[in-house]
Amino acid sequence: MNTWGTKIRLSIFGESHGEALGIVIDGLEAGTKLNLENINKFIDRRRAGKSSFTTSRKEKDEFRILSGYKDGHTTGAPLCVIFENTNTQSKDYENLKILLRPNHADYPAAIKFKGFNDIRGGGHFSGRITLALTFAGAVAMDILEEKGIKIFSHIKKILDIKDKSFLEFKEVDIDKFKNLKESSLAFIEDDLETKTKELLEKIKLSGNSVGGEIECACYNLPVGLGSPFFDSLESKISHLAFSVPAVKGIQFGIGFDFSNILGSEANDLYYLEDDKIKTKTNNNGGILGGLSTGMPLVFSVVIKPTPSISIEQETVNIKEMKNDILKISGRHDACIVPRVMPVIEAITALTILDEIL
Amino acid sequence: MNTWGTKIRLSIFGESHGEALGIVIDGLEAGTKLNLENINKFIDRRRAGKSSFTTSRKEKDEFRILSGYKDGHTTGAPLCVIFENTNTQSKDYENLKILLRPNHADYPAAIKFKGFNDIRGGGHFSGRITLALTFAGAVAMDILEEKGIKIFSHIKKILDIKDKSFLEFKEVDIDKFKNLKESSLAFIEDDLETKTKELLEKIKLSGNSVGGEIECACYNLPVGLGSPFFDSLESKISHLAFSVPAVKGIQFGIGFDFSNILGSEANDLYYLEDDKIKTKTNNNGGILGGLSTGMPLVFSVVIKPTPSISIEQETVNIKEMKNDILKISGRHDACIVPRVMPVIEAITALTILDEIL
Amino acid sequence: MNTWGTKIRLSIFGESHGEALGIVIDGLEAGTKLNLENINKFIDRRRAGKSSFTTSRKEKDEFRILSGYKDGHTTGAPLCVIFENTNTQSKDYENLKILLRPNHADYPAAIKFKGFNDIRGGGHFSGRITLALTFAGAVAMDILEEKGIKIFSHIKKILDIKDKSFLEFKEVDIDKFKNLKESSLAFIEDDLETKTKELLEKIKLSGNSVGGEIECACYNLPVGLGSPFFDSLESKISHLAFSVPAVKGIQFGIGFDFSNILGSEANDLYYLEDDKIKTKTNNNGGILGGLSTGMPLVFSVVIKPTPSISIEQETVNIKEMKNDILKISGRHDACIVPRVMPVIEAITALTILDEIL
Amino acid sequence: MNTWGTKIRLSIFGESHGEALGIVIDGLEAGTKLNLENINKFIDRRRAGKSSFTTSRKEKDEFRILSGYKDGHTTGAPLCVIFENTNTQSKDYENLKILLRPNHADYPAAIKFKGFNDIRGGGHFSGRITLALTFAGAVAMDILEEKGIKIFSHIKKILDIKDKSFLEFKEVDIDKFKNLKESSLAFIEDDLETKTKELLEKIKLSGNSVGGEIECACYNLPVGLGSPFFDSLESKISHLAFSVPAVKGIQFGIGFDFSNILGSEANDLYYLEDDKIKTKTNNNGGILGGLSTGMPLVFSVVIKPTPSISIEQETVNIKEMKNDILKISGRHDACIVPRVMPVIEAITALTILDEIL
Repeated sequence: MNTWGTKIRLSIFGESHGEALGIVIDGLEAGTKLNLENINKFIDRRRAGKSSFTTSRKEKDEFRILSGYKDGHTTGAPLCVIFENTNTQSKDYENLKILLRPNHADYPAAIKFKGFNDIRGGGHFSGRITLALTFAGAVAMDILEEKGIKIFSHIKKILDIKDKSFLEFKEVDIDKFKNLKESSLAFIEDDLETKTKELLEKIKLSGNSVGGEIECACYNLPVGLGSPFFDSLESKISHLAFSVPAVKGIQFGIGFDFSNILGSEANDLYYLEDDKIKTKTNNNGGILGGLSTGMPLVFSVVIKPTPSISIEQETVNIKEMKNDILKISGRHDACIVPRVMPVIEAITALTILDEIL
Repeated sequence: MNTWGTKIRLSIFGESHGEALGIVIDGLEAGTKLNLENINKFIDRRRAGKSSFTTSRKEKDEFRILSGYKDGHTTGAPLCVIFENTNTQSKDYENLKILLRPNHADYPAAIKFKGFNDIRGGGHFSGRITLALTFAGAVAMDILEEKGIKIFSHIKKILDIKDKSFLEFKEVDIDKFKNLKESSLAFIEDDLETKTKELLEKIKLSGNSVGGEIECACYNLPVGLGSPFFDSLESKISHLAFSVPAVKGIQFGIGFDFSNILGSEANDLYYLEDDKIKTKTNNNGGILGGLSTGMPLVFSVVIKPTPSISIEQETVNIKEMKNDILKISGRHDACIVPRVMPVIEAITALTILDEIL
Repeated sequence: MNTWGTKIRLSIFGESHGEALGIVIDGLEAGTKLNLENINKFIDRRRAGKSSFTTSRKEKDEFRILSGYKDGHTTGAPLCVIFENTNTQSKDYENLKILLRPNHADYPAAIKFKGFNDIRGGGHFSGRITLALTFAGAVAMDILEEKGIKIFSHIKKILDIKDKSFLEFKEVDIDKFKNLKESSLAFIEDDLETKTKELLEKIKLSGNSVGGEIECACYNLPVGLGSPFFDSLESKISHLAFSVPAVKGIQFGIGFDFSNILGSEANDLYYLEDDKIKTKTNNNGGILGGLSTGMPLVFSVVIKPTPSISIEQETVNIKEMKNDILKISGRHDACIVPRVMPVIEAITALTILDEIL
Repeated sequence: MNTWGTKIRLSIFGESHGEALGIVIDGLEAGTKLNLENINKFIDRRRAGKSSFTTSRKEKDEFRILSGYKDGHTTGAPLCVIFENTNTQSKDYENLKILLRPNHADYPAAIKFKGFNDIRGGGHFSGRITLALTFAGAVAMDILEEKGIKIFSHIKKILDIKDKSFLEFKEVDIDKFKNLKESSLAFIEDDLETKTKELLEKIKLSGNSVGGEIECACYNLPVGLGSPFFDSLESKISHLAFSVPAVKGIQFGIGFDFSNILGSEANDLYYLEDDKIKTKTNNNGGILGGLSTGMPLVFSVVIKPTPSISIEQETVNIKEMKNDILKISGRHDACIVPRVMPVIEAITALTILDEIL
């Protein structure tokens, strides 16, 4: 079902090349100010065509609010926002109904929807649908900022390039973090951006693609958000995270590294600092028993490489039911990791808002 | 909220040392046969006290069905099952209200529930509550077995010990897999059990603990289960997985390894085998666009080391608000990974059943 | 929350004088044909300006499908449809923020939404929002018609004018019922339309208004739809019915008349007819224990008189917090009962569809 | 589905003659005091065997709290309470599988559950299951009382016996209302109890039964509870009300009388009293636009006559598929209206609590 949330309720709709995509956001308090400039800035971060290694499809991504908003404030009725799909190339998608694209949803989608799904541009499975999520996340982010809660993300890893972790920071380090929301290749460490840009351009040239790991942190959460069953903070964040196309894994705190160490190393020891209860390490990424501990909430997700590559690939021709060769042409992202970052921040903001209201 | 599911609805309740714990399972078709022997066998797999390295607390784990069951079949009314808590040591838990146990839920739970939560044995945060989930999973498993769907799990990794992956198998290999449900230390490879047992006994002796990685596979799924938004198969499985205490990460297919390879290596190429559409590799773990592809569904979760260790730890005394030392005595698991395995299988079965009905 | 449904999920949005209103319909099977002509005909039944006694505001009620629909069929993605608000008079609504209109939602809405709600035309509380529900209902109706299920409604009562009840018919009487969907004042008995028209015109002239009772019937339902707890068919129908502005009561079968008779008269006695189990009477309106019995599902709702009348009324001036006089001018319906009828049919169709899928 | 509620979540289970029935109540704030004496007093009001006209089956109705409660307070974990079924006569229910009881759920239940439902005592359809709802309602009532909210009900009508309406009272009249919770035949007017008792005894003697109308009022609600779509206060109350067996209609305020009057008579005119905004009449029963207005919330429900009567009835023998005669023997209520009253108060309290938290 395309709805999500308890206190905030999202209903997402749209297809990549249909009339429009959008989202209904219910549960926002009447009188909430919407900072349209902030929202535009935020959704602009997932726009393509800004870098040499992303697709050149340039959507304007202009939103139109249909309801729930008047004179700068929410009215208490559901906020519905839509994005018209304007820049859709009328290329022949019929071919894609025949030759299954590896790592795309084509095959299971065709079975599930009995061939009636809109396959153009990935249809409802398109990453473009996350534009609506990003809008909702921008709204949530603004509300959280009012409460002092801050969310950041950065690229933690692409192939051999590895950045520092947010786990090394016990609080927001504005000097280090301020650029994360500005850069199209956001790293905590200064020297990684250029190196990565060069790598991605090389990959794009070769017609290939690459994924990566995004780390996200949320600072200044109150203690006790979440539940043990079944809505642990980890459950809720992961539920939304895996709605983002290309996410294939998620870990909280040190995550999979918990299998490399002993309990005595894993345990985050409590101590008092300025009369506040903190832990010396933050291996758990700010969550224990499904509840926020007050330490920074830190998690990372892995993004698989963009499936669309211009290299020839073996596949199945489902019309003739025979093995065949697929050659995808057209504009593609060599790496969508930077464009997914605001989406990950968005789903974090939405989850936290749903818990905090 | 302690409810989960759309077509099946679970409501879980109970505390480790309260009167009883249990679960209400709604949505089972009337006339479903319950194989009580299979259920007992399944829940027995998460029982403690069977190995030298697990806690010696021996619960009998006897269930009592209160409703929804008559003459061997479900009646269509909600199935409520309870487990009485009998073997509860009356040790002094007051101390734990004062000295926060690292990596347990004590601190955020005390804040969230304003000190009213039942702290004995972890209360509602106890791993013991998963006993109810395991019962529900056993019921689901039996229904799925009728449809030819099979679920297995094994230990993928503990410290340096690493097992083969299910990803190497395109279908159920009964010879290799049949022991997985029998052994208390289930590996695909034959020679790992003894080695691991020795490791765990050594760790237990040292008063320490260890976590590990569990891999789970589900065979013979139909194509097209799941949704793109917001209930991808990955979303639903991860949501339940993170309700299991100690799970800190989840990855589907090769998961975090997607950040190490190029698109041309990551893409699972389609081909025809016996007129069926399959993929040469299964890097995506049987899920594309949130939908099952018909290839084996494979994922792994990481379990953090048992927080309760008998080594002295620094912590905070919240009564006197000062730094202090905690010494936990009593029976503990050196490694709960084997006991968590049936729980992971259970949540997989429940998720699949909720999709397939 | 502005969402409803289990197998079908509706998300409604919009305000009477905002940009647009609409609905997201999720859960429709991919490949469902939409008969746009039928839909237009159905939603046209709730349009104003067709009769001498309804408001002269003439909306065109043209819908635009934004997603989930392609080449005549649903795609499996959520179906989003919007209606732009074009014919909105720019009259001074500021006055209404000051003088509370009796029997409208003004006062509690102002408190709930802290004055931020869009008050123009009733905003989100406007009957106009049911246009979206009517669209959804038209879609549902078409799907049900395919399965042989038929839904009708008629005016059962306005002041002293009383029609026959559907309870007198054990099955669809096409001769009697075919006009119900055509007439703007639909009665089963032939001679009531003219009489009622005259009454309503007289009431309109006097600046007053009137309500009435609508009876709705659903034929050819399978046996066993619904549940005892908490989603009885009566629960589900009434839940949606009370979302329709002006509905203040609902009764199933003979409803409140059950307090006038003895058990021996109330009991619907079973008998066999053509090897089918039927009941001699249908006092229960086709529902027992919350489940459909296979007999016609019959219920009626009462609609209160349109609150907007042109007669002067006492009220409170909330700006100056003093008693004051309100004079409402402008176009109004003397009786909205005929316009509510398709909405009641719509919510019935939606409820049945949600149960039957 | 047997779950209900947003902020409070109820999961009900059990069958009349099974092991036990009960309810899981989730969402209660940790530290909520439970007044067990009040709860016992409240659930005792629905107990049978207290009057000459109710069934002589005397259940003890003793509850056992399994979880979520410790040292007089809720712990924050789900509260699970069960009632064991002890006083179940082992009479032959096989007969009832063959001869359909008119106005009971037997027939549609047998179809829905394919004959696997527990038919003894009505199984999951039994009014006895409302015992669990009554417990939950008693808890809710106590929480609401703390906030000054008071709920009362009385018998409004049985055959020709008619009581005053709560609509005549603008606030709680303690002198008049205090007996309503004590009497087994609660009327506002003093002289109706004896008369009704005589009537009911006469009906019981004749082997027949009777229904009636219950009116319920809720005082001191804040303004603005509820929503326009789809969770109007009327929607939520009616949803739960129709889960109570035998309820066949509900009306808010003057309800069906709205079809008898003009808008000028129907409109509740605002005025100021002690600087508070009130209405001169309360035809809307304290709800406008789905929201509470601050005036007393008043609604009434109709209860159909008890289906089980000792008079011979025609019916169908579904084993032999022939018309047959049914003679029900055993203990029955001549009128369940008094026993349903606390259940109606309970569902009101639960609805209000779900809105107010």
